[in-house]
Amino acid sequence: MSDTKPLDRREFVKRSGTAAGGALLLNTPVAALAAARQTIPSRGYAAIDTSGTLVPWSFERRALKDNDILIDIRYASICHSDIHQMKGHWGPQQYPQVPGHEIVGIVAAVGKSVTRFKVGDRAGVGCMVNSRLEQLDGVENEEQYSPDTVFTYGYPEADSPTGISQGGYATNIVVRDHFAVHIPDHIRLQDAAPLLCAGITTYSPLMRAKVRKGMKVGVAGVGGLGHMAIQIAVSKGAEVTAFTTSADKVADIQAFGAKAVVVVDDPAKLAPHQGSLDLMISTIPYQYDVAAYVALVKPYGTFTQVGMPERFELTVNALGLSASRVNFNASLIGGMAETQEVVDYCADHQVLPRIEIIRADEINTAWNKVVIKRARYRYVIDASTF
Amino acid sequence: MSDTKPLDRREFVKRSGTAAGGALLLNTPVAALAAARQTIPSRGYAAIDTSGTLVPWSFERRALKDNDILIDIRYASICHSDIHQMKGHWGPQQYPQVPGHEIVGIVAAVGKSVTRFKVGDRAGVGCMVNSRLEQLDGVENEEQYSPDTVFTYGYPEADSPTGISQGGYATNIVVRDHFAVHIPDHIRLQDAAPLLCAGITTYSPLMRAKVRKGMKVGVAGVGGLGHMAIQIAVSKGAEVTAFTTSADKVADIQAFGAKAVVVVDDPAKLAPHQGSLDLMISTIPYQYDVAAYVALVKPYGTFTQVGMPERFELTVNALGLSASRVNFNASLIGGMAETQEVVDYCADHQVLPRIEIIRADEINTAWNKVVIKRARYRYVIDASTF
Repeated sequence: MSDTKPLDRREFVKRSGTAAGGALLLNTPVAALAAARQTIPSRGYAAIDTSGTLVPWSFERRALKDNDILIDIRYASICHSDIHQMKGHWGPQQYPQVPGHEIVGIVAAVGKSVTRFKVGDRAGVGCMVNSRLEQLDGVENEEQYSPDTVFTYGYPEADSPTGISQGGYATNIVVRDHFAVHIPDHIRLQDAAPLLCAGITTYSPLMRAKVRKGMKVGVAGVGGLGHMAIQIAVSKGAEVTAFTTSADKVADIQAFGAKAVVVVDDPAKLAPHQGSLDLMISTIPYQYDVAAYVALVKPYGTFTQVGMPERFELTVNALGLSASRVNFNASLIGGMAETQEVVDYCADHQVLPRIEIIRADEINTAWNKVVIKRARYRYVIDASTF
Repeated sequence: MSDTKPLDRREFVKRSGTAAGGALLLNTPVAALAAARQTIPSRGYAAIDTSGTLVPWSFERRALKDNDILIDIRYASICHSDIHQMKGHWGPQQYPQVPGHEIVGIVAAVGKSVTRFKVGDRAGVGCMVNSRLEQLDGVENEEQYSPDTVFTYGYPEADSPTGISQGGYATNIVVRDHFAVHIPDHIRLQDAAPLLCAGITTYSPLMRAKVRKGMKVGVAGVGGLGHMAIQIAVSKGAEVTAFTTSADKVADIQAFGAKAVVVVDDPAKLAPHQGSLDLMISTIPYQYDVAAYVALVKPYGTFTQVGMPERFELTVNALGLSASRVNFNASLIGGMAETQEVVDYCADHQVLPRIEIIRADEINTAWNKVVIKRARYRYVIDASTF
């Protein structure tokens, strides 16, 4: 679609450099466009089919409205969900589509009604960017369940030049201010990025289960989400047992604070832990033997699925569920207030993701490593390389 | 196995007639054998393969031990689980095997340590008959989850002449006294039979969910379990919405007290009820679109599966579960104390199953009707016809 745009628009696409003050940023060409309520050129990496290979792509962001902010993206990290959605595992997609919903950067422009942010602020964006509602008062705690919420990429968005929302593997993004959070000064932007999805997705069910000192928490799957789940639960005083299929992650997992690590190279390894957990957080994002993991939870305990497999489908064993009397539920990210909470909590307590910074041209290699479980533990894209 | 037994044993197999006093009953030949601690001849209907066709069969019950009672069976009702298990849907079975776990009758003999029952008492037996534990104090509230519990049929039982427990489609049964309940005088035996599985299986999760006045309860599947779930919930003051695929059940379901009935001949019929229920009890005993039914429950509500499908497997949609924030669990019958409670409750409040009495030689026809959803609503076998 950007092919039809005049070249001079593309020339405007320059990163605004340092996180300097508002005046300087407002003088950038992109900010000027924002102020003029014109569509905003952006450049990123997009999927163009279900192959799982991304290509460089230039496109337009929607024009800034009164409640919107323009963020100059500094880092965007890679979530397994990006891969699932682009490959069509969750249903057919419109292409080109830019993935990415763990986004941090600097506010480059604000709409005239915005009071929560000013130019120059450090800001983060997760899985949600907008709402079709004029007023958001009624849904402010659980925006992720509102039918009116616009998710960060691939979601119909009438005033977007591409017709859908486009994600954070890009130089900038326009979001409604309500859907951005503040990134405190005492956490690096690159460390904050994974908190916007991996952090909130694991923090929310832990908090809902009232994670506390001495609580026995299991974490199944130790990737981007799992390594945050372990660290958050440990920081809240829980005794964490981690379940991984990767033997070479054991030392890391111990460093994250887990009390025990089970390398599940054989399902029989699960048996000694049967009925031992108050809560299990399963981050496994593919089909697996759910019954065997459910059996690890104490009677009337809770099993929360946060990993989203292909077609979102999991097979549960009703007899196994009844025998373990476990509440099986699933959790989807968290609301905006809780997203701000997890960012602040992780900054305050230095609960940080283990990241590897990559360039834009390394995204495809990184995606493959995520799929084959070689990520250690979150790839963070340096947006200056788009 | 009974082929090797002497003929004179078989001659003893006579039903003891009326529910007369203990002295008379103790004079029956079977009771005399019980007193002599000999194995006890029984006659019933057994599966001999996975065909789902039962045949008449004579066999021996284990000898009465100190804590056992011998029950002269009057009625046994037909549960879909009988059919699933005999057909091998839940795993390979040993044959011949007598199904039946909704059993009522008259106590014909008691072991010398039995204090809870005396000869002549009206007694009921559900899905459990014995425990491998000497002492039962520790498991008394949730016997169904003890690994030492012996279920009513097809379960290894060392001192049973057939090597497995044999169920209630028969003239008599030997059970440990702990696993029998009293049937009050103000309920007919034939009405009490279905309470031993259909009743307790639906009562237990309703009580666990604190069913109460005004609570919005859904019941999916209106067969033996479902029609009890509706009536129990209604009697507790809940507003019940029933979901059935059988349009010709609507009038019955209204008579059971349901406030609304949805005939699900098209999944679109579910949509208007999305997010409307505090609790859903699903009695559907086969694979179905769980996600569509889960969506009917309010955020943070509960969905309890009590129907047990083939291989016990159900496919759930993790995104659907997360979006509805529902606790999905499954429930298996109930403990013995709660089984006594449901029998007493249903007798006191005249919450009764809708039954059809059949002869033993009608069992195969009745099973087929259960499978093709023609049962209205519980077939009760007159044990005098074995």
